[in-house]
Amino acid sequence: MVEIYDTTLRDGTQREGISLTVEEKLKVAVLLDELGVHYIEGGWPGALPKDTEFFARAEKELDLENATLVAFGSTRRADTDAASDPQLQALLEANTDVICIVAKSWDYHVTEALRTSLDEGVAMVTDTVTFLRNEGKRVFVDAEHYFDGYKQSPEYALRVVRAASEAGAERVILCDTNGGGLPSEISTAVAATKAAVPNADLGIHTHNDSGCAVANTLAGVRAGVVQVQGCVNGYGERTGNADLCTVVPDLVLKLGVEAIPKERLTRLTTISHLIADLVNITIDPHHPYVGTSAFAHKAGLHTSALARRRDAYEHISPAEVGNTTRMVVSEMAGRSTVLGKAREQGLDLDDETAAAILATVKDLEARGYQIEAADGTFELIVRRATGWEQPFFELESYRVFTERRADGQVVAEATIKVHVKGERVVATAEGDGPVNALDRALRQALASTFPDVELLRLTDYRVRVLDPAAGTAAVTRVLLEMSDGKQAWGTIGVHENIIEASWEAVADGVVIGLLRLI
Amino acid sequence: MVEIYDTTLRDGTQREGISLTVEEKLKVAVLLDELGVHYIEGGWPGALPKDTEFFARAEKELDLENATLVAFGSTRRADTDAASDPQLQALLEANTDVICIVAKSWDYHVTEALRTSLDEGVAMVTDTVTFLRNEGKRVFVDAEHYFDGYKQSPEYALRVVRAASEAGAERVILCDTNGGGLPSEISTAVAATKAAVPNADLGIHTHNDSGCAVANTLAGVRAGVVQVQGCVNGYGERTGNADLCTVVPDLVLKLGVEAIPKERLTRLTTISHLIADLVNITIDPHHPYVGTSAFAHKAGLHTSALARRRDAYEHISPAEVGNTTRMVVSEMAGRSTVLGKAREQGLDLDDETAAAILATVKDLEARGYQIEAADGTFELIVRRATGWEQPFFELESYRVFTERRADGQVVAEATIKVHVKGERVVATAEGDGPVNALDRALRQALASTFPDVELLRLTDYRVRVLDPAAGTAAVTRVLLEMSDGKQAWGTIGVHENIIEASWEAVADGVVIGLLRLI
Repeated sequence: MVEIYDTTLRDGTQREGISLTVEEKLKVAVLLDELGVHYIEGGWPGALPKDTEFFARAEKELDLENATLVAFGSTRRADTDAASDPQLQALLEANTDVICIVAKSWDYHVTEALRTSLDEGVAMVTDTVTFLRNEGKRVFVDAEHYFDGYKQSPEYALRVVRAASEAGAERVILCDTNGGGLPSEISTAVAATKAAVPNADLGIHTHNDSGCAVANTLAGVRAGVVQVQGCVNGYGERTGNADLCTVVPDLVLKLGVEAIPKERLTRLTTISHLIADLVNITIDPHHPYVGTSAFAHKAGLHTSALARRRDAYEHISPAEVGNTTRMVVSEMAGRSTVLGKAREQGLDLDDETAAAILATVKDLEARGYQIEAADGTFELIVRRATGWEQPFFELESYRVFTERRADGQVVAEATIKVHVKGERVVATAEGDGPVNALDRALRQALASTFPDVELLRLTDYRVRVLDPAAGTAAVTRVLLEMSDGKQAWGTIGVHENIIEASWEAVADGVVIGLLRLI
Repeated sequence: MVEIYDTTLRDGTQREGISLTVEEKLKVAVLLDELGVHYIEGGWPGALPKDTEFFARAEKELDLENATLVAFGSTRRADTDAASDPQLQALLEANTDVICIVAKSWDYHVTEALRTSLDEGVAMVTDTVTFLRNEGKRVFVDAEHYFDGYKQSPEYALRVVRAASEAGAERVILCDTNGGGLPSEISTAVAATKAAVPNADLGIHTHNDSGCAVANTLAGVRAGVVQVQGCVNGYGERTGNADLCTVVPDLVLKLGVEAIPKERLTRLTTISHLIADLVNITIDPHHPYVGTSAFAHKAGLHTSALARRRDAYEHISPAEVGNTTRMVVSEMAGRSTVLGKAREQGLDLDDETAAAILATVKDLEARGYQIEAADGTFELIVRRATGWEQPFFELESYRVFTERRADGQVVAEATIKVHVKGERVVATAEGDGPVNALDRALRQALASTFPDVELLRLTDYRVRVLDPAAGTAAVTRVLLEMSDGKQAWGTIGVHENIIEASWEAVADGVVIGLLRLI
C-alpha cells in the first residue's frame, strides 16, 4: 500500500501560466477526490490570501469521500518561537487534520539561504513539529533538497529526518527539489535513510529536471517509501513535478502496488483532461497513458496484426486508464458509455440510436469538440438523435460589433433576428463584450414568450485555440457553463470565429435552460 | 564510451503531425551531425520513396563531420531468399556503410504476426545478416519487442540475439517497442542478455509509454550497453522515443559517460529548437534541459538566495546545455527579480526605476494581468518606466464586426484608424474571426511604412475569463505569443471586452516585433 499525495493545488500551481481562482481550486479538489487520491495539499494559507480563502470555503463546501485535505507551510523562522509564529497560526486556522511543513535538509541551504547554524536548522524542525503535534495535528515533513543534501552531507540530512520523526512527524518526505536526481542515486539514498532511521515512515517527492521524475518515484517506492507526492499531468515549476497520471498506473498496473482502486483508475484520462481544462493548458497528446495519442497507431505496418492481437502492440489495455486505442480518427467512448450517460440523464435509448449518437460524437470530437466536458451539449445530441428538435427559437441572423472610439471608450452591441413561436423578433442589446451582448440580445428576444429566461446566468466561459500553430486563424473552442440558480450545465462550441463558437454554446445553453425551467 | 544513434528521421517521424520533406530531412541531418551524434538513421529506403531519395541526395550533398548515415530495413520475409528480396536490394542501393535491420525477438509476434515457425524466425535473422555482411556492409540488428519477448519467452529472445551476433551483426539493439518497460525490468533483462551472449555488443531503444524511456535508457547503459538509440525532443509514435535531449546530458553531465563532447553539448538547446522549428511543433517550455522554462524560477521566496548561490537551486549550470536561467516576474517577486529580468533583456535600471516597475507589475497583476507569462509585455513595462514611448503608431479607433447571415455564412471584418509617422491611415481587413481581422487590419495599416511587419506571426492565443462567477460579463484575459520566425515573445491584454483585451495584446506584440525587426 502506497499513499498518493497530490500537490497540484500547491506545487503544481508553481508552473508558469497556471493561476487558479478559489472556485477552480475547489473544482480540482473534487476531481482529485473522485480519482481517489489519499491527500490533497490545498495551498499555503497565510502566505497567499487566495489559499486562506480556499481552506475556509473547502471546510464549508467540500464533502470529500476519499481524500484528506492538507495545509502546507514552513517551519518556524530561525531564532524565533514556534508558538508566536504568525505563519504557523495561519496554518492552524486552516483547520485541517493534517499539516505538511517544509524543512531544509541540505546543510548548504541552512548556512547559505537561511544563514543560520545547523543546530538551529534542526531545532526549527523539532520545535515546529512538536508545536503542531501539541495542537493536535497530524504532521508531515517535506525534507527539502534532501537528495542533494544527502549526497553532500549525509549526516545533516539524516539528522533532519531523525529530528522530524522523533518529534512526532507521521511521514518524512524526501524531496528532490532541484529535480536533478537519477533513479540509481534515489534508490541508494532512500534505502540508506530507511536503514539509518528505521522508525520513520518515508515519502518521495520528485521533479523532472533529469527527465526521470516518474522513474525516481518508482525507485523510491521499491526502496520502501509509503507515500508518493506528485501533480496531475506533471504540473509544477520548471520541468514539473512527478506526474501522478503516469506514476499511479505504473504503480497499480505494472508493479501491482495498492494505491488507487483499479476501478477508479478508469476515470484517469477523463479527470486528467478536465483538470487540464480548468488550468487552461492544452494537454500534450503524447502524454503517457492519458494523451490522445498514447494508444494511437499510425496506419500501415501492423494494422491488421493489431486488430487480431492487440496485446502484442499495447503495453496495457487502454480501458484500464479510461483511454482508447485510436487508429485513424479519434474514437471516444464505446456504445455502453453512451447508453450509460444517457441513462444518467434519464433518457432510455435503443442500440441503433446509441450507435448513431456514438457516430455523431466521434465526428464532433474529430472537429475539436470535447463532449465529455459539456453535459448539456451531450444531452442535446442524445435528444436530437431521437428526432427531437428544440421548439423554443430559430435563428435567422445576428450581427455583433465592438468599437473602440477615438475617446477610448469601448462599446459592444449585438442585434439578433430570431423566430419565436412563429413570430419574428428583432432585438438589440449592449454588453461588456461581444458575447455578453449577444447573450443579452437572445434573452431579450425570448423574454416576452419565456419570462423565466431571465433566471439563466453564464457562470463560466473558457476559450482555447486548438491549433496554436495557426494563431488566431485557428479553430476556437468555447466551453461555457450556465446555471438557473439550482443546477448548472456545460455546453461547447467550435468554430474558426470565436463569436460563432460562443453563439453555438450560448444558444445550446439557453435551450437546456428552457428545458429545465419550463 | 556510449554511441549515440539518432532515429529522429525514421522512428521520430512516426509521431502524428510530423511529415518532413527530403530537403528538411537533410537539414535535420546536418544539425544532428553538428550536435555530434555517432549514427543518423535516415529512413527506410524502398519502403518510402521519400527515404530512397533522401539517401540518394545525402550521398551527394551531405558532408558529415561526425556521424555515419544508416539505412533502416527489415529482415527478409518468411520462406523467401535474402538475395532475391527487393527490400534488401533497395537497402543496399542506399549505399550506406551501415545497415540496421529490424528482427522480431518476441515469439508471440513470430507466430501471431508473421505466422511462421520459430525456427524460420531465427533463420530470417541469420540469413539477412549473413547476406548483408557478404555484401560488405556493417550490420546492426534492432531486436523488436525484445523486453516483452524476454519476459514471456527468454529462450527465444536470446536465440535471436545469439543468431544475429553469430552471423556478424556488430550491434544487437534491445528494443522496448511497446514502451511499457520499467527501469528495474530493463536492468535485469539487459544484464541477463549480456551474460547469456557475452560476445554481442548490445544497444538500447526505448519508448515512453510508462513515462520511463529516459530512465530505461540509463538503466541499459548501467547494465552495459554500448549504443543508445533515441530521437531529438523525444519525437516518435504514441508517447515518443527516448529523448536524446535528456538522455545525452544525463549521460555526459551526470553519469560521466563519454558520449558527446561537452563543448558540443552547449549547442543542445539551440539544435533542439531548430529541429522543433523544422518539424513545426512548438517545443514544450517545460522540457527538461532545453525548454524555455527548464531553468525558470518563480516565487519571490528564494529569489535573493538564488542570486547569491545559484548552484543551490539548479541541478546543472544551464550554460552546459546552452540554456539560460530565467527569472519569472510575478506578484510574488521582489525587486531583485525585476533587476535580474531587466538585465536579461539588456536593460540597466536604477533602484528607483526598479521599484516603480515592481509597483506597476503588482498593480497590473491585481487587475488580472499575469506578467510572468508575457515577457514582451514586461519588456514594454520596463521601457515605459524609463520614459520611452513606442514610436511606431498611435491608435485613433477601431471597429470590428462579426455577422452570421441568414444563409449561415459567418463573416468578420475590422476597420482601424491609426497615425503612422504623422500620417493618418485607415485600413480594413476580413479575417477568420474578429481578432484575426483586427490583427490583419493593423498590419495592413503599417505595411507601407514598416514592410517587415509582414514577417510577424501569431503563434498562440489563449483566453481566460477571470471571474467566472460573472460569466461573459467578467474580465477577460488574453495571452498571445508572436514570432518573427527567429524568436518568440508573449504579450497580455486584460479587459471586460475580449476584443479590446486581444487588441491590447496584439498591439504590444507588434510593437515588440517592430523593435526586434527594425
